[in-house]
Amino acid sequence: MRKNRGLFIGRFQPFHIGHLRALKWILSQEDEVIIAIGSSQFSHTIRNPFTVGERIEMIWRVLKEEKLLDKVIITSVPDTNGVHSIWVSMVLATCPSFDRVYTNDPLSRRLFREYNIIVKKIPFFEREKFTATLIREKIIRGEKWQHLVPKQVYEYILEINGDERLRELYGKKYDNYNPH
Amino acid sequence: MRKNRGLFIGRFQPFHIGHLRALKWILSQEDEVIIAIGSSQFSHTIRNPFTVGERIEMIWRVLKEEKLLDKVIITSVPDTNGVHSIWVSMVLATCPSFDRVYTNDPLSRRLFREYNIIVKKIPFFEREKFTATLIREKIIRGEKWQHLVPKQVYEYILEINGDERLRELYGKKYDNYNPH
Amino acid sequence: MRKNRGLFIGRFQPFHIGHLRALKWILSQEDEVIIAIGSSQFSHTIRNPFTVGERIEMIWRVLKEEKLLDKVIITSVPDTNGVHSIWVSMVLATCPSFDRVYTNDPLSRRLFREYNIIVKKIPFFEREKFTATLIREKIIRGEKWQHLVPKQVYEYILEINGDERLRELYGKKYDNYNPH
Amino acid sequence: MRKNRGLFIGRFQPFHIGHLRALKWILSQEDEVIIAIGSSQFSHTIRNPFTVGERIEMIWRVLKEEKLLDKVIITSVPDTNGVHSIWVSMVLATCPSFDRVYTNDPLSRRLFREYNIIVKKIPFFEREKFTATLIREKIIRGEKWQHLVPKQVYEYILEINGDERLRELYGKKYDNYNPH
Amino acid sequence: MRKNRGLFIGRFQPFHIGHLRALKWILSQEDEVIIAIGSSQFSHTIRNPFTVGERIEMIWRVLKEEKLLDKVIITSVPDTNGVHSIWVSMVLATCPSFDRVYTNDPLSRRLFREYNIIVKKIPFFEREKFTATLIREKIIRGEKWQHLVPKQVYEYILEINGDERLRELYGKKYDNYNPH
Amino acid sequence: MRKNRGLFIGRFQPFHIGHLRALKWILSQEDEVIIAIGSSQFSHTIRNPFTVGERIEMIWRVLKEEKLLDKVIITSVPDTNGVHSIWVSMVLATCPSFDRVYTNDPLSRRLFREYNIIVKKIPFFEREKFTATLIREKIIRGEKWQHLVPKQVYEYILEINGDERLRELYGKKYDNYNPH
Repeated sequence: MRKNRGLFIGRFQPFHIGHLRALKWILSQEDEVIIAIGSSQFSHTIRNPFTVGERIEMIWRVLKEEKLLDKVIITSVPDTNGVHSIWVSMVLATCPSFDRVYTNDPLSRRLFREYNIIVKKIPFFEREKFTATLIREKIIRGEKWQHLVPKQVYEYILEINGDERLRELYGKKYDNYNPH
Repeated sequence: MRKNRGLFIGRFQPFHIGHLRALKWILSQEDEVIIAIGSSQFSHTIRNPFTVGERIEMIWRVLKEEKLLDKVIITSVPDTNGVHSIWVSMVLATCPSFDRVYTNDPLSRRLFREYNIIVKKIPFFEREKFTATLIREKIIRGEKWQHLVPKQVYEYILEINGDERLRELYGKKYDNYNPH
Repeated sequence: MRKNRGLFIGRFQPFHIGHLRALKWILSQEDEVIIAIGSSQFSHTIRNPFTVGERIEMIWRVLKEEKLLDKVIITSVPDTNGVHSIWVSMVLATCPSFDRVYTNDPLSRRLFREYNIIVKKIPFFEREKFTATLIREKIIRGEKWQHLVPKQVYEYILEINGDERLRELYGKKYDNYNPH
Repeated sequence: MRKNRGLFIGRFQPFHIGHLRALKWILSQEDEVIIAIGSSQFSHTIRNPFTVGERIEMIWRVLKEEKLLDKVIITSVPDTNGVHSIWVSMVLATCPSFDRVYTNDPLSRRLFREYNIIVKKIPFFEREKFTATLIREKIIRGEKWQHLVPKQVYEYILEINGDERLRELYGKKYDNYNPH
Repeated sequence: MRKNRGLFIGRFQPFHIGHLRALKWILSQEDEVIIAIGSSQFSHTIRNPFTVGERIEMIWRVLKEEKLLDKVIITSVPDTNGVHSIWVSMVLATCPSFDRVYTNDPLSRRLFREYNIIVKKIPFFEREKFTATLIREKIIRGEKWQHLVPKQVYEYILEINGDERLRELYGKKYDNYNPH
Repeated sequence: MRKNRGLFIGRFQPFHIGHLRALKWILSQEDEVIIAIGSSQFSHTIRNPFTVGERIEMIWRVLKEEKLLDKVIITSVPDTNGVHSIWVSMVLATCPSFDRVYTNDPLSRRLFREYNIIVKKIPFFEREKFTATLIREKIIRGEKWQHLVPKQVYEYILEINGDERLRELYGKKYDNYNPH
């Protein structure tokens, strides 16, 4: 019998505990989940520090630890540089087939719905705490961030000196970090 | 302790029994393997019939059946349209890190070696029998091809009407198929 | 005898009464006009909500109503993502030939003049009232905008739920709209 | 009341009498037709000699003569360089909406059908006589081709020295023309 | 015997006296220098007013005057539109080989170091005075800037009306110039 | 007084004695020459084995030996992947200004003439002997080719193992080389 499948889209810069809880919640709704890593071509910026290869590795390590590899497929989707009209077809080509999309992003929601694809909202899990923007800021400022990501992600980022990369990209003294 | 990792590159149009045997052989040399699906942006041609999403799905189903999902990571790499000088950096960005590349393709071998990356040959397993070109030909001609791919791949291609797609793309009467 | 031809460039997001008056004024100077829809690849953003197909349709409906289809040709030109040095050649390749360009945009004016193409200014027609930016704002805020566009454009945008699209893309509550 | 609309796709290199007959036949099935000029970015080759601007102009002149401008909309669609999975979304973004596609090309037919878009065949009208390939060959060889295209197309190609362009691109002596 | 070679990267919009001093300083460290003109595809903006052809010419004229043409090679490297992971491979493909890179830009420094390429800092020479941003501002405002660039650059920019181009691109009255 | 300038375009895969003679002949017609290296983004194929950085280096070494660096400027121009209508504007943006183009290629000649740029033919110098295609064939076959290129080019290609690269790319036994 064909399984029910949800698509979970994000940039995962990095994959944090909010993402993991969202994934588990989607898995309570669906048999299998496709994790689509968006803006796959970008890396080495404050907003997108990690390559798609690095993001695949951090998610795969978490899935392995959580024993979810036989229910979750990892894929990647490039950003279309503002040519939004082709983005859904990019998702359809780069991902195994799915029944529903889970995302809270207004643009993505609109684009999928114009293709008659069902879109569902994801409940937020302590959103003020678990956002990738905040985690990147903490890394840059040298603050504690270990508790905000799965253990495997923390170890992996240290392993590839990802914290150092972010601080170097920021370039200036990080005691007066200002993202705007 | 850091695992040994090999990179296995191919277009996998489709993933066949020769690929599976090669994968198992590489796994006899390495702890973990990255499968990089090349020419990821192409589909719907005689030479590249399947989207990268479809190729990910067929390989994932095989890995699941073979209980290899915790040792093998699936990724995808676009073709760089003849700009070969950036291709290795594309591979490095789209794949988790690896120690060695396994490929018999002269261009890929050369490109990796110019980056000082170790390249190893893959032994062929009845190559006259297991080639994707031959399998696509058999599908177009309506000949038997079930025995040339893993069971999961066969079922999946039928499920998405992939055999019909290939025959339609070929366009002409397939009793006089000529790939040249 | 060869007709005199003007090129009228804009993004037409959407095509409004100011554009229509400008078109009629250019037609008082020239026998025929090419309407070139710029930034053709963009859509589904606050600044560029409509696809080029939608913009072609709205302009075509107005031209039909105004009985101008035998004097005006609609074409489209992509944005060149900052590679301004090739933009004029893009215009020349995507448009039927013309004698003069009508635009008030400093960059376009400069680029055409470096190709020795004659550029003319367009008189403004109540510019404080008829600007596409203002119309998009009014749509987002749920204010009255029907009087700012030709009847055919108004009906067409409602027909494709273009007003809803803009509001969804804006995402937030639109009673406190702030474009900056 | 919403009109019935067909999409007529082709490269129109150049637009010939077979195309005009096909257009009229489609208009016997539909209220309105979108003519989508494919491979719009290509020009100055033996296979694609004319720019999209030139092709728009030749078709517009014919439609004007035939008094079809209020039933037919001309648009253009780029070739996606082998990334076939996004091509239908390109068509949808660059064209006003339509109900059915008319094309005999196997790849296009397959791609539209995978999007659940209805595809119809076009009856051929003396196909051995009216093909763009044959017309380009005749122009290169200096043979008579005036009778194969609408009068407006013939005059236009001479006006822009399009026949000379084709012969120059071919480069060699055209008394021994061989397209292969 | 193989010469020691440094790579000197910049956008050179325009090439000024600070750049020339930096070049001479690098030549005190190396036998030969590759000047790589970055963001080569951009031109005709306030930030990138000059084409790469124009930048090559201004640098070549300076090198000729300074009798450095037999020690310095001029090349160009495109901006990769945020795909930073391929940028170093672009530099390696577009430039003759080199031993060390000289740049103070945090992103470039990080990217080269991840490729195990040695990166050195360039001492600043009156940086508050010699910055391309400041020179472009002065040109726009109509202030004196002749003393900030080599004589050949000044003459060349006037020759191509580059000062007028910048002012036209700025568009507004330049007595109240504000770059932000 | 403004110098007369010619543009000399080629792929220079590799730069050989026929190219050097052509350059000297053009210098007998003009004060200065721009050498534009075409198809700059391609490398690592039989037809385009060398990167643009390598081609710049080989030409620069020859110019240095010939004491021509103060009369000849080296630039590079990418291939536009069949979008020929923008190619001339690419040349104009990537090269310092010039008065005339020297090329025998029918497509380039046509494209420049459509921009009203003067195009001149280059006399052939023992063309049956000095063609890059023949030299690449000889390298692949392991035949003598030293006498066909300037000394600096020969040494440089050996220095970067360019001969080995070509043979590896060819892949098969080169005693039965067949380029078709």
